[in-house]
Amino acid sequence: MTLNVFVVGCGAVGTMCAYALQESGKATVTALLRSNYNLVHESGLHIRSIDHGEIHNWRPHNIVKSTEEAKAFGPFDYVLVALKNLPDVYSIADIIAPAVVPKHTTIVLVQNGIDIEAPINAAFPDNTLLSGVSTIGAELDGREVLHNDPDLVYVGVWHDSNGRGKTACRELAAVYSSGAASCEVIEDVQWYRWRKLVWNASFNSVCALLNLDSGTVQDAANSLDTLIRPAMREVVAVAAAAGCTLPPDVIESAVSSMPKEMRCRPSMQVDALRGRPMEVEAVLGNAIVVARKYNVAVPVLDTLCSLLRAKQWAILKKV
Amino acid sequence: MTLNVFVVGCGAVGTMCAYALQESGKATVTALLRSNYNLVHESGLHIRSIDHGEIHNWRPHNIVKSTEEAKAFGPFDYVLVALKNLPDVYSIADIIAPAVVPKHTTIVLVQNGIDIEAPINAAFPDNTLLSGVSTIGAELDGREVLHNDPDLVYVGVWHDSNGRGKTACRELAAVYSSGAASCEVIEDVQWYRWRKLVWNASFNSVCALLNLDSGTVQDAANSLDTLIRPAMREVVAVAAAAGCTLPPDVIESAVSSMPKEMRCRPSMQVDALRGRPMEVEAVLGNAIVVARKYNVAVPVLDTLCSLLRAKQWAILKKV
Repeated sequence: MTLNVFVVGCGAVGTMCAYALQESGKATVTALLRSNYNLVHESGLHIRSIDHGEIHNWRPHNIVKSTEEAKAFGPFDYVLVALKNLPDVYSIADIIAPAVVPKHTTIVLVQNGIDIEAPINAAFPDNTLLSGVSTIGAELDGREVLHNDPDLVYVGVWHDSNGRGKTACRELAAVYSSGAASCEVIEDVQWYRWRKLVWNASFNSVCALLNLDSGTVQDAANSLDTLIRPAMREVVAVAAAAGCTLPPDVIESAVSSMPKEMRCRPSMQVDALRGRPMEVEAVLGNAIVVARKYNVAVPVLDTLCSLLRAKQWAILKKV
Repeated sequence: MTLNVFVVGCGAVGTMCAYALQESGKATVTALLRSNYNLVHESGLHIRSIDHGEIHNWRPHNIVKSTEEAKAFGPFDYVLVALKNLPDVYSIADIIAPAVVPKHTTIVLVQNGIDIEAPINAAFPDNTLLSGVSTIGAELDGREVLHNDPDLVYVGVWHDSNGRGKTACRELAAVYSSGAASCEVIEDVQWYRWRKLVWNASFNSVCALLNLDSGTVQDAANSLDTLIRPAMREVVAVAAAAGCTLPPDVIESAVSSMPKEMRCRPSMQVDALRGRPMEVEAVLGNAIVVARKYNVAVPVLDTLCSLLRAKQWAILKKV
């Protein structure tokens, strides 16, 4: 059996997902490309991967510029969304709608943030929805993908419309993991989302606001103690209020997970630097909504988010 | 009687102070110049002033590159400090020390911030110390001064060493105000400092962090309500705890004091943009010290200050 998969968004993460699925030999991959469609159409992708080695001129089976165009390659068993999560810029439900067959297509969100599932579930209540957390490290520049931290995706059921949720998870994970990449089926995907958010909500925000990489931020004044750890503690407190208990060492693990020497530029910093919209709402805004719901004070996240929203406004207005 | 005045720091504010004093005909002015010494030495200053009109090739009576050099023009009745307040970069006490005659020289601080007087008083306990708050609007670029908001300095006694504090205030104010500029003697200089800090701590910080002018910040997302006014409320609360009651309309007055259309770039934003150190400690750091003393929560100021300290670190390290 071959899975028919539509990968929406071929940034670094989406490309590596597409690659893992296609190279399994057990999936047909149609990929939606936007900014780099022409480059990939002409020359394919050049991937340097810690998992897969160096690959020249790689192409998904089919590449398309729009979901309408993708329909020719459907019906899809899976729509895997690896698009940047920008509810303040576009609607992911609208983008994927033409490719979603009610009661058939399983939707998989491999995106950052917290509580990103509800709007997709509301738009497609008759489809099984899986939620995925990627721990990959990868960057895309034109047609060049640098994949420098192993590809591991955690996937779990968020909404089961036909009793096949668990099976869909296992099926996808089996195909995804049949090569060098890994996909692990988990019970509590929100736990993984909150755990990842500990790093993302703190370092992404501070790095974007200061335009400093995560290593430099650790050196800058007393930022680890005055900004990063306080923001992380707030994320942990909100998670706990939402019923998700993170391990006691989660903050120090997060801090040490990205050694200074890596000088990592988080996605929000790169986006801000390139004048592109940042995932402010998925990463910070939604966490603050949860904080308000449970009456958890998040003064650091509040101020960081307000500053980032102003920065986002300037980016969108090209001020 | 002619006052012998040493003006330390001839940025826009210092230059206009020097001009007002010198053109009174009642003061001899020696000015310490740094970055623009050569330009002013060769060509003088070109001043376009809302108070004084257009002035070509103006020079202080004496210009010097160092306080040691200034001593030849002493002893000084007044040392007027209009230098940027950067305790994390240099010591103002060290800079002015050679020009201060114990028990004779009156020191006048015409600088931004709160609680900036104590270190100067500690260094010169036998000298009268006046504290001044300037409400001028002026910019310096090379030898060009654009003075576009009237020159009004409030001055009051901070430390009286010889019973002449009040007299020194009146004497200075009389000379300063004998032309088109104004200097007003006040009782409670801290009240004026806190009132000015309401605008400075909020707009300066946010504009510097986002590199947006004060008008644009008012348009950016919901910044007035999520950043500016919350920061202002914290300043008002700290001031109140310190015994300084600001008027009920101080926040709305501050917001409307600088109309959007002026697109004002506050000094911290200009400094950050030029890679020069910002007055983080005088404007925010010291206010936070007072907040801690009186146990006032200042979460917005805390986060803004921590971000600015990290930015300052990057500026000083030229990262």
